[in-house]
Amino acid sequence: MLILNNNDVANLLSLEEVIATVEAALIANEQNSCLVPKRMHIDWGENTFLSMPSFSNDYFGTKLVSVVPGNREQQLAVTNGAMLLNDAHTGFPLAMMNAAKLTALRTGALGTIGIRYMTPPDVDSIGLIGAGVQGIQQAVFACAVRPVTKIYCLQRSQTGMDAFVTALREQFPAVTVIPCKDADTILQHTNVIIAASRSATPVLPDDPRWLENKHFISIGSYKPDMQELPDQVFRLSGKLAIDSVFAKKETGDIINPLMKGILREEDVFTIGKLLTDEVKIDVNVTTAYKSAGMALFDLFMARALYEKASAANIGTAVSF
Amino acid sequence: MLILNNNDVANLLSLEEVIATVEAALIANEQNSCLVPKRMHIDWGENTFLSMPSFSNDYFGTKLVSVVPGNREQQLAVTNGAMLLNDAHTGFPLAMMNAAKLTALRTGALGTIGIRYMTPPDVDSIGLIGAGVQGIQQAVFACAVRPVTKIYCLQRSQTGMDAFVTALREQFPAVTVIPCKDADTILQHTNVIIAASRSATPVLPDDPRWLENKHFISIGSYKPDMQELPDQVFRLSGKLAIDSVFAKKETGDIINPLMKGILREEDVFTIGKLLTDEVKIDVNVTTAYKSAGMALFDLFMARALYEKASAANIGTAVSF
Repeated sequence: MLILNNNDVANLLSLEEVIATVEAALIANEQNSCLVPKRMHIDWGENTFLSMPSFSNDYFGTKLVSVVPGNREQQLAVTNGAMLLNDAHTGFPLAMMNAAKLTALRTGALGTIGIRYMTPPDVDSIGLIGAGVQGIQQAVFACAVRPVTKIYCLQRSQTGMDAFVTALREQFPAVTVIPCKDADTILQHTNVIIAASRSATPVLPDDPRWLENKHFISIGSYKPDMQELPDQVFRLSGKLAIDSVFAKKETGDIINPLMKGILREEDVFTIGKLLTDEVKIDVNVTTAYKSAGMALFDLFMARALYEKASAANIGTAVSF
Repeated sequence: MLILNNNDVANLLSLEEVIATVEAALIANEQNSCLVPKRMHIDWGENTFLSMPSFSNDYFGTKLVSVVPGNREQQLAVTNGAMLLNDAHTGFPLAMMNAAKLTALRTGALGTIGIRYMTPPDVDSIGLIGAGVQGIQQAVFACAVRPVTKIYCLQRSQTGMDAFVTALREQFPAVTVIPCKDADTILQHTNVIIAASRSATPVLPDDPRWLENKHFISIGSYKPDMQELPDQVFRLSGKLAIDSVFAKKETGDIINPLMKGILREEDVFTIGKLLTDEVKIDVNVTTAYKSAGMALFDLFMARALYEKASAANIGTAVSF
């Protein structure tokens, strides 16, 4: 069996390869060529455990994730995970990999697919609300698909902002980061806004004058009682792209506009349909996209990482 | 992270240590000190996948199992699995181990707990119906808790019988194996019968004259449409010990006697109650025990293996 640690995972694939991997998963999902059961969610004390299996023709895999909020006090990562990849023909375990960077990469790519397919090609600035671990990935991947020169960024902690600037500079030194005090300032300067916050309530003003003809990507909200985008976004867009149908039950950014009747079921579509041309949209008017993740993206990432690592002799091979 | 392969797992613990580990899990289960969610069961094609998490105060873990019947044609193991052990305080992965031998050992120990607590102490022979991988473990563990000198064995394939004799001789060379042509022959010679078959229908005659005052342990049946023990066993015993409440929904050896009214709900008890003295039984009359397994046994095994391996510097430590 091949063991890939977080460092191996971080360096194996280019940004373009990660995006291509996630796009392949989105297309496979549209073609129903894979089996993705509802993930298992267990609350134990204040902690959460997730078991996320999925199955394709050649591989299956399971991401096992723990969320331990108490870790924050000890300066330890709150979310930890491991991904087991198996041969679908025999069931044999093939690889075990740290899921932290794997998840960060695929989530970054999932966000940027919203930019690639739902914004004009000449976008040269983005707004970012929340520049934590996820925000960094969103910015990096956005720079990979658009000629971004400026990032307008709302990040309350100075330490967080410094870490963001440092991380971005490593990969895109020519991009300028402009710290902003509030969301209004961001909306004044750019048309593409990525929300990667931990906020339970909308991070933007609920006013159509500020929102019209802009492009919104929500990454942060992952529970039914969390909504990052204001209702007016959904009124203006009239449609909402999502990364998987599971998201419909997981996040307030979909549940609420449906419940309030702002969107109808038929207004919500999986973004994979933009890749397969089953749905076409106008990228010059308001667009909205909510990404919540799904086990299948992890499986495709694990496959790509395993295949490249095997070919390049990277990682630690152990008898099992 | 520590990686333990099948060979490491096979050699780390003595039979007594395995039994003590499984007994500790049974007692913890009685004390409700652990969280054991219903396992996730996914059918994909003709194959099956199981995700089996469980949680204790110090550790949690997940056994991921695949059952691929098509492997038999290629002389590959049908059932394969891996067990991830985590620190319950931080969620961090601690160890990844091959689950094949781990499962075989804990299942052997679970069976023999029926012998230790539900048969007279001077038992010197056992009957074994089905001497495959599981049958071998049952016999070995039985020899560890009783002064067994003879094993009456029904195993149709000669190759299987030879493998059984060879495996048993390695650990208990003084024990004689007596091949039997049918179950009646076994019942003529011994009072303790372990059924470790793949049979969907009872492997013993449904006649009280053959069964009275004997002791029955069923290991094989793992589906609602599988029943190894005949109805008369349950009529004579009037009670049925089980290794976990999950078994009530999993196997015909519990579902059927309850459905037919041969046993009432209150006649079925977890065998852990014999260890905590909450239930007492007479081991000189007919007794019946059905073991179906549970994730908690795997967790306790993984913990014992990890702690002993760490102390003895066994396994492969990898950065993760």
